[in-house]
Amino acid sequence: MLTRMNSLSALLSPSSIALVGASDDAQRIGGRPLRYLREGGYRGAVYPVNPKRETVQGMRAYGSIADLPETPDVAILAVPAAGTLEAVRACAERKVRAAIVFSAGFAETDEAGRAIQVEMTGIARESGMRLLGPNCLGVFNSTIGYYGTFSAILDGAFIEPGPVGVVSQSGAYGSHIAHLARQRGLGIGHWITTGNECDVDVAEALRWMVEQPDVNVVMAYAEGVRNRDTFVEALDVARQREKAIVFMKVGRSEVGAHAVSSHTAALAGSDAVFDAVFRQYGVWRAKTTAEQLDVAYACSRGKYPAGNTLGIFTLSGGFGIQMADDAEAAGLDVAPMPQEAQADLKAMLPYASPRNPVDATAQALTDLPLMTSYIAAMLEKGGYDVFTGIFGSGPASPTFADRLREVLETASAASRETIMTLTMTAPPEIVRSYEEKGFLIHEDGTALMNALGALVHFRRSFDRAKQAPEHLPVAEAIDLGTAAIGEHEAKRILSAAGIPFPKDALVRPGEDAGTAAAEIGFPVVVKIASPDIAHKTEIGGVIVGIAAEDETRKAAAEILERAALHRPDARIDGVLVSPMISGGVEVIAGVSSDPAFGPVVMFGLGGVFVEVLKDVTFRAAPFDVAEAHRMIREIRGYSMLEGVRGAPPADVQALAAMLSALSRFAAANAAAIESIDLNPVRVLEAGKGVVALDALIVPRA
Amino acid sequence: MLTRMNSLSALLSPSSIALVGASDDAQRIGGRPLRYLREGGYRGAVYPVNPKRETVQGMRAYGSIADLPETPDVAILAVPAAGTLEAVRACAERKVRAAIVFSAGFAETDEAGRAIQVEMTGIARESGMRLLGPNCLGVFNSTIGYYGTFSAILDGAFIEPGPVGVVSQSGAYGSHIAHLARQRGLGIGHWITTGNECDVDVAEALRWMVEQPDVNVVMAYAEGVRNRDTFVEALDVARQREKAIVFMKVGRSEVGAHAVSSHTAALAGSDAVFDAVFRQYGVWRAKTTAEQLDVAYACSRGKYPAGNTLGIFTLSGGFGIQMADDAEAAGLDVAPMPQEAQADLKAMLPYASPRNPVDATAQALTDLPLMTSYIAAMLEKGGYDVFTGIFGSGPASPTFADRLREVLETASAASRETIMTLTMTAPPEIVRSYEEKGFLIHEDGTALMNALGALVHFRRSFDRAKQAPEHLPVAEAIDLGTAAIGEHEAKRILSAAGIPFPKDALVRPGEDAGTAAAEIGFPVVVKIASPDIAHKTEIGGVIVGIAAEDETRKAAAEILERAALHRPDARIDGVLVSPMISGGVEVIAGVSSDPAFGPVVMFGLGGVFVEVLKDVTFRAAPFDVAEAHRMIREIRGYSMLEGVRGAPPADVQALAAMLSALSRFAAANAAAIESIDLNPVRVLEAGKGVVALDALIVPRA
Repeated sequence: MLTRMNSLSALLSPSSIALVGASDDAQRIGGRPLRYLREGGYRGAVYPVNPKRETVQGMRAYGSIADLPETPDVAILAVPAAGTLEAVRACAERKVRAAIVFSAGFAETDEAGRAIQVEMTGIARESGMRLLGPNCLGVFNSTIGYYGTFSAILDGAFIEPGPVGVVSQSGAYGSHIAHLARQRGLGIGHWITTGNECDVDVAEALRWMVEQPDVNVVMAYAEGVRNRDTFVEALDVARQREKAIVFMKVGRSEVGAHAVSSHTAALAGSDAVFDAVFRQYGVWRAKTTAEQLDVAYACSRGKYPAGNTLGIFTLSGGFGIQMADDAEAAGLDVAPMPQEAQADLKAMLPYASPRNPVDATAQALTDLPLMTSYIAAMLEKGGYDVFTGIFGSGPASPTFADRLREVLETASAASRETIMTLTMTAPPEIVRSYEEKGFLIHEDGTALMNALGALVHFRRSFDRAKQAPEHLPVAEAIDLGTAAIGEHEAKRILSAAGIPFPKDALVRPGEDAGTAAAEIGFPVVVKIASPDIAHKTEIGGVIVGIAAEDETRKAAAEILERAALHRPDARIDGVLVSPMISGGVEVIAGVSSDPAFGPVVMFGLGGVFVEVLKDVTFRAAPFDVAEAHRMIREIRGYSMLEGVRGAPPADVQALAAMLSALSRFAAANAAAIESIDLNPVRVLEAGKGVVALDALIVPRA
Repeated sequence: MLTRMNSLSALLSPSSIALVGASDDAQRIGGRPLRYLREGGYRGAVYPVNPKRETVQGMRAYGSIADLPETPDVAILAVPAAGTLEAVRACAERKVRAAIVFSAGFAETDEAGRAIQVEMTGIARESGMRLLGPNCLGVFNSTIGYYGTFSAILDGAFIEPGPVGVVSQSGAYGSHIAHLARQRGLGIGHWITTGNECDVDVAEALRWMVEQPDVNVVMAYAEGVRNRDTFVEALDVARQREKAIVFMKVGRSEVGAHAVSSHTAALAGSDAVFDAVFRQYGVWRAKTTAEQLDVAYACSRGKYPAGNTLGIFTLSGGFGIQMADDAEAAGLDVAPMPQEAQADLKAMLPYASPRNPVDATAQALTDLPLMTSYIAAMLEKGGYDVFTGIFGSGPASPTFADRLREVLETASAASRETIMTLTMTAPPEIVRSYEEKGFLIHEDGTALMNALGALVHFRRSFDRAKQAPEHLPVAEAIDLGTAAIGEHEAKRILSAAGIPFPKDALVRPGEDAGTAAAEIGFPVVVKIASPDIAHKTEIGGVIVGIAAEDETRKAAAEILERAALHRPDARIDGVLVSPMISGGVEVIAGVSSDPAFGPVVMFGLGGVFVEVLKDVTFRAAPFDVAEAHRMIREIRGYSMLEGVRGAPPADVQALAAMLSALSRFAAANAAAIESIDLNPVRVLEAGKGVVALDALIVPRA
């Protein structure tokens, strides 16, 4: 991985650049990158390639890649689709380390295009050249003035370097979000668009991005993921390094997913699984572009609150209430001020509401020493992790803006740890003057609260990453074969992997089911044992509540008869005699193979919860017990496990251990498993464990 | 109501105005309104009142209200709290028809302030003078240049008249949203802030607003509601008149609700009930201020789509996918283009995705005739109710903006019915040039889709209002008394109101329960019958599954014994013998008395749905059967009623009829009822009805 990652440095931080198809017209696809490189302050060598001209935009032009005086780190190919293959070949022959292909008209268009894309990828791979695109808008690295893109957003002004990285499959989206970031005064150090991803994909770009010391937060966009391992590794490294990832994953709707499959060749995977993986690795999934920007802005300082308490200062009761609503929705704790401090504030201004939100009323607008005292009291006595002040369009007046900034600086001088945030509507230069003093400024309170919720989320995720084991013990892979596996065998295999089952007995034809039942203890259940009969109840292959030996024998005979009648083709191992286990809370667990993420563990409550409410959740395998606990807590019916209607709390600890064991088994045998079902599973009273009553393993054909 | 409403015309559309406390300093509270009135083009008489000056801002000043040459329609009182009572009295004596009180320091501050507020309200009421405030920012009516406010947002520029009305309890919020609307180019004809609401409240202001012919949409803000009937009437009239109401209701969180109660004297009521009432009357509840503005903007034309199909035109696949996701989340139908039309489009441009989203790729940017053909095909052959085109920052270039506008006008010439929307980022003058041609312009796609969802919602709500009965038959009020009511009596009362119960028998002490049971038919259930024992199972007062006469007699004796033992104080009517009814789907229904909305009907599924998931919903009583159907469909577990696990569909029709009957009974007896519980209720197989197995009525003490 690291070697491949290092191979990206030629692409993303090159010492020399060739531009194939360089144009004299700075508005054309072959002209823009050259102008950006000339005007953007890039200090390495730039070689325009154009066989028809002596010079391009005043620079000497070369006839071909072969003619260049040195081998460039990267070649930007601004040539039409028809000429791309030849250009790639020329680069490969010259041993260029990386190439960017702008042109569309490949895998996204038709089969012919797909074939050419495959061919060019093969040429590049053979020579060890990395390829970005085709059908992409390229890259930029503003820290060195390297603009390997024809994106029109740089026409008017460059993007300033800054702590934000952008990784986007879609060039249009990448351009749009960069444009919005610039409007917001947010600098972008590194920007990568991956397009058709014939070689470099979002996963690898993200993996590279989270290693960059100057990047605090990454805004990512993808329609799907091709390389699961690299993707998950990137997310994992990000939280280890305290880099926030704010992700726009599209294709969550049916129409959207359909459009994804017609738009790119990405393996889309289930959106619910994406969602689960994002939760698992502490990624913030943005629901809207505006949210992606708001959260990235809040993360750009790389400063996260220690806890989730929030003090709200307002001059209008109504705004305070709205902010408190939004704060609670975002998971923040609008904790009241200490009683004594409240009394002090009330003494200063009888109109005020000193609890939290602290409402100093419009009075404080004309009495700035009062405002200073109020805010200082909140910071010194409230002990809040985050402070926010609501100021509306007041600071649009430069005079008031200056005075207010002084008030805030004075009041917060002694509170370096508190994250200081404000809502206001003011011209950019006024906003910047506050930002320079360390304040985060949002126009909209709801957006701010949501972003603060994200900060708390990242802090927790980063802390969890520190506690998580470096390496999860992975189960041993076993040979599952490709044939169907019976319940008894499935239980044996999963039992060895740490899944608890009741003690049961396989009674082969001719053996005595009665004795086996007596050994197990009554009541028992008798089930048909056959690798070919997955749905046992459908053929009447399950009899429950058997209380005596004789009854067991009769049941066994009956079941074997039914099996012979309904499924004469099936191989019959005999019957399985198991103890009846009731009580506890019924849950289900399973493993499926996601097109994007491979083995994925599913968990839900049984009965109406899964059948009516689809109340299930997912995790990519493997995961540890702590992660399993978070997974369990995600379901809506979680309180069932805490005990309702006088029931005792269930053994969630044992359930979490089981799910983690299942995930490790699934990961170790990822290639061999199509699916696993544990249904039902009974979670017994706390301390008494968990038991899976049935097991089905479907090996991959 | 109408008389009182007419009395608002003096306040909101006055022919003459007095400003008491008029100041020469146009920056002061007493100066601003005068400047706004002078410069805003108001044509009626304006009388500054200031006993200390001959002139104010160049106008002749009067010493008192009494000195005025005529009685003004409205008096604006820009005097401190201490002088307010006297000013109100002077106005009342002069028979001024309405007064606006700006000053704070009344009910929101302390008990002394509250007492003064009560006194001034009494004075006004006695003389028939309407009062707005205190602690408010006043009103404006930009259509006549009447600015009865000191809001600083008018300092720089006036608000243009337009199809939006604003009704806000909070002056700060009202100013903020007006400021944002102006930035958006959205005109506001009428603007009312109600503050402490000692007389005119949000409900009455809203009621007035929805009668104004020039208002298409109202942005409202409230923390609570004082006058339930006026409020509900305003919402009802709004949908009859096709006026969209976009509501910001704050105080939904625990902290927020606490802040409401410390901030105003509003009767907050349950936020869940507010939410239900908004759904009931087709109000759009905005979650954020930005959303409130986006939706109001979309509604401002007063044009709503006939259906929910949406055609999306894009130049970038990624944006199209994101838009499709957002569209589906907003309830829009991104229906595919007809196959033949798709083939035509594909023939024009092989790269394109012609399904929907229709992706003409960046190619269409340089081939405008192609773009025209594409969009025309979508409008002519797609038959979409709404069209949206995604254009990013392209139209920021005036040249391109002009060409694109022509393309869109040409393509849409034949499609007058389609709502035409675009997303773009461009300077205001370019946006206006599109708006003038009838296009709705949003910057953000998610915000646009949400707003389009709102348009569909309003269209459906307006249509429903036309189908709804003019007057719902209200049940007859009966004398419930204030004493506890036993199950048997409760069933008798509710049965008369149309709630179905099983045929059961009250067996008085000494009578034979066995015979009664035989008449009903076995199996039966026997329950203690006592008005004093509400929770019968707690004393062992219920025995179920009784199969024979003798067994019934024993059960009755046993239950009477238990009651005598555990509740020797209770009045015993005897025992109730009822048929055992099983099967169907268990639900619960009830009535509670909400502080803001009075009698409210609750409905939910029984068992884990209510106990674990709190899956219940509400409606303000009364409501018709169609509304009951919508209520039923709101619960998450609704599919239980459609039949799951092979169960037949339940009799939702009978359930809806029962809920409507319950609501009419609750409305007719609103003052007498504290609560009603029907738990459990069994919804039988479709066609077999619904039966409530238990009933509890708690009269108001």
